[in-house]
Amino acid sequence: MTDRHDGRAPDQTREVRITRNWLDHAEGSVLVEFGRTRVLCAASFTEGVPRWLKGKGTGWVTAEYAMLPRATNTRSDRESVKGRIGGRTHEISRLIGRSLRAVIDTKALGENTIVLDCDVLQADGGTRTAAITGAYVALADAIENARGKGLVAKKAQPLTGSVAAVSVGIVGGRAVLDLDYPEDSTAETDMNVVMTGDGRFIEVQGTAEGAPFDRDLLGQLLDLATKGCADLTERQRAALAATPTRDDEPTTGGVVA
Amino acid sequence: MTDRHDGRAPDQTREVRITRNWLDHAEGSVLVEFGRTRVLCAASFTEGVPRWLKGKGTGWVTAEYAMLPRATNTRSDRESVKGRIGGRTHEISRLIGRSLRAVIDTKALGENTIVLDCDVLQADGGTRTAAITGAYVALADAIENARGKGLVAKKAQPLTGSVAAVSVGIVGGRAVLDLDYPEDSTAETDMNVVMTGDGRFIEVQGTAEGAPFDRDLLGQLLDLATKGCADLTERQRAALAATPTRDDEPTTGGVVA
Amino acid sequence: MTDRHDGRAPDQTREVRITRNWLDHAEGSVLVEFGRTRVLCAASFTEGVPRWLKGKGTGWVTAEYAMLPRATNTRSDRESVKGRIGGRTHEISRLIGRSLRAVIDTKALGENTIVLDCDVLQADGGTRTAAITGAYVALADAIENARGKGLVAKKAQPLTGSVAAVSVGIVGGRAVLDLDYPEDSTAETDMNVVMTGDGRFIEVQGTAEGAPFDRDLLGQLLDLATKGCADLTERQRAALAATPTRDDEPTTGGVVA
Amino acid sequence: MTDRHDGRAPDQTREVRITRNWLDHAEGSVLVEFGRTRVLCAASFTEGVPRWLKGKGTGWVTAEYAMLPRATNTRSDRESVKGRIGGRTHEISRLIGRSLRAVIDTKALGENTIVLDCDVLQADGGTRTAAITGAYVALADAIENARGKGLVAKKAQPLTGSVAAVSVGIVGGRAVLDLDYPEDSTAETDMNVVMTGDGRFIEVQGTAEGAPFDRDLLGQLLDLATKGCADLTERQRAALAATPTRDDEPTTGGVVA
Amino acid sequence: MTDRHDGRAPDQTREVRITRNWLDHAEGSVLVEFGRTRVLCAASFTEGVPRWLKGKGTGWVTAEYAMLPRATNTRSDRESVKGRIGGRTHEISRLIGRSLRAVIDTKALGENTIVLDCDVLQADGGTRTAAITGAYVALADAIENARGKGLVAKKAQPLTGSVAAVSVGIVGGRAVLDLDYPEDSTAETDMNVVMTGDGRFIEVQGTAEGAPFDRDLLGQLLDLATKGCADLTERQRAALAATPTRDDEPTTGGVVA
Amino acid sequence: MTDRHDGRAPDQTREVRITRNWLDHAEGSVLVEFGRTRVLCAASFTEGVPRWLKGKGTGWVTAEYAMLPRATNTRSDRESVKGRIGGRTHEISRLIGRSLRAVIDTKALGENTIVLDCDVLQADGGTRTAAITGAYVALADAIENARGKGLVAKKAQPLTGSVAAVSVGIVGGRAVLDLDYPEDSTAETDMNVVMTGDGRFIEVQGTAEGAPFDRDLLGQLLDLATKGCADLTERQRAALAATPTRDDEPTTGGVVA
Repeated sequence: MTDRHDGRAPDQTREVRITRNWLDHAEGSVLVEFGRTRVLCAASFTEGVPRWLKGKGTGWVTAEYAMLPRATNTRSDRESVKGRIGGRTHEISRLIGRSLRAVIDTKALGENTIVLDCDVLQADGGTRTAAITGAYVALADAIENARGKGLVAKKAQPLTGSVAAVSVGIVGGRAVLDLDYPEDSTAETDMNVVMTGDGRFIEVQGTAEGAPFDRDLLGQLLDLATKGCADLTERQRAALAATPTRDDEPTTGGVVA
Repeated sequence: MTDRHDGRAPDQTREVRITRNWLDHAEGSVLVEFGRTRVLCAASFTEGVPRWLKGKGTGWVTAEYAMLPRATNTRSDRESVKGRIGGRTHEISRLIGRSLRAVIDTKALGENTIVLDCDVLQADGGTRTAAITGAYVALADAIENARGKGLVAKKAQPLTGSVAAVSVGIVGGRAVLDLDYPEDSTAETDMNVVMTGDGRFIEVQGTAEGAPFDRDLLGQLLDLATKGCADLTERQRAALAATPTRDDEPTTGGVVA
Repeated sequence: MTDRHDGRAPDQTREVRITRNWLDHAEGSVLVEFGRTRVLCAASFTEGVPRWLKGKGTGWVTAEYAMLPRATNTRSDRESVKGRIGGRTHEISRLIGRSLRAVIDTKALGENTIVLDCDVLQADGGTRTAAITGAYVALADAIENARGKGLVAKKAQPLTGSVAAVSVGIVGGRAVLDLDYPEDSTAETDMNVVMTGDGRFIEVQGTAEGAPFDRDLLGQLLDLATKGCADLTERQRAALAATPTRDDEPTTGGVVA
Repeated sequence: MTDRHDGRAPDQTREVRITRNWLDHAEGSVLVEFGRTRVLCAASFTEGVPRWLKGKGTGWVTAEYAMLPRATNTRSDRESVKGRIGGRTHEISRLIGRSLRAVIDTKALGENTIVLDCDVLQADGGTRTAAITGAYVALADAIENARGKGLVAKKAQPLTGSVAAVSVGIVGGRAVLDLDYPEDSTAETDMNVVMTGDGRFIEVQGTAEGAPFDRDLLGQLLDLATKGCADLTERQRAALAATPTRDDEPTTGGVVA
Repeated sequence: MTDRHDGRAPDQTREVRITRNWLDHAEGSVLVEFGRTRVLCAASFTEGVPRWLKGKGTGWVTAEYAMLPRATNTRSDRESVKGRIGGRTHEISRLIGRSLRAVIDTKALGENTIVLDCDVLQADGGTRTAAITGAYVALADAIENARGKGLVAKKAQPLTGSVAAVSVGIVGGRAVLDLDYPEDSTAETDMNVVMTGDGRFIEVQGTAEGAPFDRDLLGQLLDLATKGCADLTERQRAALAATPTRDDEPTTGGVVA
Repeated sequence: MTDRHDGRAPDQTREVRITRNWLDHAEGSVLVEFGRTRVLCAASFTEGVPRWLKGKGTGWVTAEYAMLPRATNTRSDRESVKGRIGGRTHEISRLIGRSLRAVIDTKALGENTIVLDCDVLQADGGTRTAAITGAYVALADAIENARGKGLVAKKAQPLTGSVAAVSVGIVGGRAVLDLDYPEDSTAETDMNVVMTGDGRFIEVQGTAEGAPFDRDLLGQLLDLATKGCADLTERQRAALAATPTRDDEPTTGGVVA
């Protein structure tokens, strides 16, 4: 059986880099790279919650995803210029928000809001899974930043776990992990899986692009995804374990491939 | 173990009604009911394709989903009045379109376009799965209508199979089929599954609303969904087998529950 | 003189059906049919009034009209997708709102709001007049529903009368009542008339589509409209007199033609 | 019986001024004044027609109405800033367009388009009727201007007649002609009537603001409107009869009150 | 060296007219004309300030600029119809607002808001500079009007000076003042300069349309602009010195050319 | 006289970094940094021109500027979510486009379009001047890239010079170069100057934020800007002189401060 076009094994992710504190202003920020896919994740912590949540003693976490016009191979028009947000953008923003809320204890967060902005600087497949994986780290940093300012109680545990995401798919008849753009655009089936650090599922979104798939294939894909999310969880831990010496000095976590 | 709030067995769908030819103008139209959920599916067949497909000899199938303002328990504002389509609407429209395209041979369709409008007249959970299930029948009718007018070749088979969809979820710790709104709003996990008539998967979209779920639970949900889609496929076949005597006389298929 | 294309006498409306309680959630709801024209009217009663009315002790009644994309013979784009509401939609929504407010005593309604959503499921001419005629019945039901919940005082009379509407026009040189689409699209003059149950005018909107019309012709059209509104008033009374045995069991009023 | 607040007789219009050639660029332009109401009407003649009319040998006339933010007593927000056109604006634009098309022979106009922009510089009631009355004169000038350039055939008669409009209403129990703002805001019934120069009706739009009105009152209002439109027609003729010496020198017609 | 196309000397403005009280409702209003350029400036004074300024004891002055569709030689689409405001409109509105705020003491204004609406009725170059020059006069009138009503304290001096604006540019190799449209559209360099009545700069916006310009040329343009703004300041003083006998009788200031 | 808050001399820019080839897909791309201000400039070269330029044998260069929501100290809402582009964004996009077009020979470019996307990843004052300075380098790279593909003729010189931009202002009574955010927000006068590599002016935009300024001060600011643009031109030359060994390996130019 031939290799993948970039020489990876079927169950191997691309090289993953997680650079913390990429921005100076945000309470948490991460430049996450899955190979050539690069997403800037900024976590903004603000006191208070949207009107519909006021007085309930719970916080709110939400996300917005977007792509720079030249993140892709050919330039796409800005959604701000078109005056409306497309369906794909909406869908991914909602996915990221749900995924992060799955590991948030909103009571422990208190009446505070965290917005995760995930802006794709360069796209080469897997932007939504990179965004979720990076946003988790930015979220964790924002919470510790807020704790440092006394906005989150000393012993509060707003995070109930960690979350990572990866794509899997059937390419050339074979199940592979973490598809890049050339693989993604020729995949028969494409699945995005979001999992907690302890191996449970938060989201499973599988789509038959070509032929419908059967239960057995679905099982193989879930196996691969479980392996991939475990690898990414490891990468997140390593990145968060590194101690930045100064706030404005980015910390790049180790690399897996 | 207590019964479901409406007395159904865990693997039982709500009463399903498929009324063909509910509209006089559309090339195919179906009022589909999953219990109190009522969706009007209209298939509009037009010659020609969008500009980006011209001259390629292939057709196009797309879908738009929307909800009337008082489909729900409390009135929601119209998206036309707000001037923008929400993320949920976008997401479901895209899902319906992908699901139907999975059983369409666009070459056999020729350079023709079919738009499926799925308007929720009343919502009680499962509107997207009802929409897909009904839209398939409207699509099949529109293709036969076009064949009658000579717009689709006599021996062409634009449909490569049938498609049905159902929701499954964990409610009160138990896996159940075809959640209504009271169940849906308290489900720990919610999954929408779209399958072909021969039992393969087109879409699997599972979301942990409460606690993340493990592989075993995922398996149970997929079993239930497989059973539910098979029942719905049966209902679609029965509805399509009935012969309307006049075009403007609706044909209601039998009922399963 | 030849018959109308569907055999009706010049002063005869199409078959009219008023089905109450067509929806389960709305405080009042009616599926109104003028021949093949079908409009779903939902009345939503909510406590409170818009900001500009607060504290004045008066209520508010408003209406929104819209058409499903495939209500018509060829599909039209959704206004939500276009991102703006067209002039015709605006105009008709305003007309329906004004017509219903003409029979509302806002003091007696108290600080409550009723929104009438009139969604055209199928269009065959006369959608705005069918909408007004059906919306009145939904409005009456919503008020009684609110009274039952104690939101409207026992002896309050928010309704000062009833309202019905019909179109009249000159088709083929002859004044006719309740034009269907084939007639409407060839009419020289088209007039929509809204009247109270006791025979007074609320709105008169006449437009010369072809040749301008003189005072005598205007008189003939007003005579016809007066007759038509009286017939429709009778139909509304019959529908409201029927007693639904259960909330979710639609009550179809008798039929006039 | 007391006088009207400004001393006019019930059947008397306000002072009417029609100033032609108020603009240098437009093919036809009129500043029309009904008392303190001032509307700038610009007619833009362009060769060609919208896509949906191409090749049919007929022309197109349309209108757009708008109000400057400080035309009224208190400033209103710009529709361009709000990003959407309100229902009232849409409604009046459509009315003006229909009214002018009623006296246009589109065949004789050839494949040309005339857009009438009616911008209210100051509003004191009756802006839509002033707009129609002034727009007719601008339209006539634009056609002659185009004829001078050879864009309309020498003997073609694109205008089949003239059109004028006036408001009538019941104020303080009495039928009066050409309501100004103080009268309009207290009227029980308000009617706008558009008529041809030879006394036939193009549009009749009556609305019961307070109590519904009966057939007799409707008759009185139509009598008044007929008288008012005849006066305005006279004013239009006088204005068009005056010969401007230079293109950029405005010609103000005589005054009636 | 040949004359300018309209015979003006290089340092000569067009004929300038400032007509005060052109509107009846606005607290201040001016029709300002720079040759054929005509801008209607309305100043609306309202008590209170936007939310973000409340309780700070300071007022707010802002401006909105727009062009009627047929102000220009060929008709342009309305921004309200397009649903968005263009970049040029935004830019000029912001410039006018900044220019006027430069001579406002917001403390002395108190918690009041003045909105300057500058609507171009006819455009022949220099619309933004005419708008600023006219808006200053309308602003001064609005402040005195408010003082008369006791909304501005008797001895308060909200105006710290006057402001006027003019365009300068290089046309045919020569520096000229107050460009009209034919000059503006062929200028190599175009500069708009806003100055106080005592000869200091508020805004300098120079753009090389053709070749970049050097420091010497920049100096010449600034000299011309200084001369032009001084002339306009004189015109503003003359206009404000004239005493209107009645509120609704426009006062046209003298003419400079 | 005290130092600037970050220790710079009055005529000293911040540390400037120009990293070429920061993106893999774009024909030219630069990450430009003026201290903590970071702007990603992507140049997209496409064959063909907008419709209004077709067949004229000339090319087109345009620019779009935007800010990521968390580029600033507190998060701002996305313009795509608000559905409209703000005035400031419009204004800066237009400025960047004009500035670059000033050094483009559109005939030599041929019928090709280059779009410069300038996205602010982090803002600390001077984002528009950094954007122009970086965009020029990306533009130069895109042209050479196109030449390599034969889309620009071998000997064609679409670039007629280079362009750089810098801000100057009066802070604490002293004229200073390249203001960062703390300086910018307290400046009495703020000026952005765009110059060619040979020291001529393309744009001069000076605004009195506090007190109006006189001719002498204007002179001092222009001197400083001339010095700053010369420094930046030097930096651009150094960056462009460096030879990237591989396309995807960023080349960071030297640093000036």
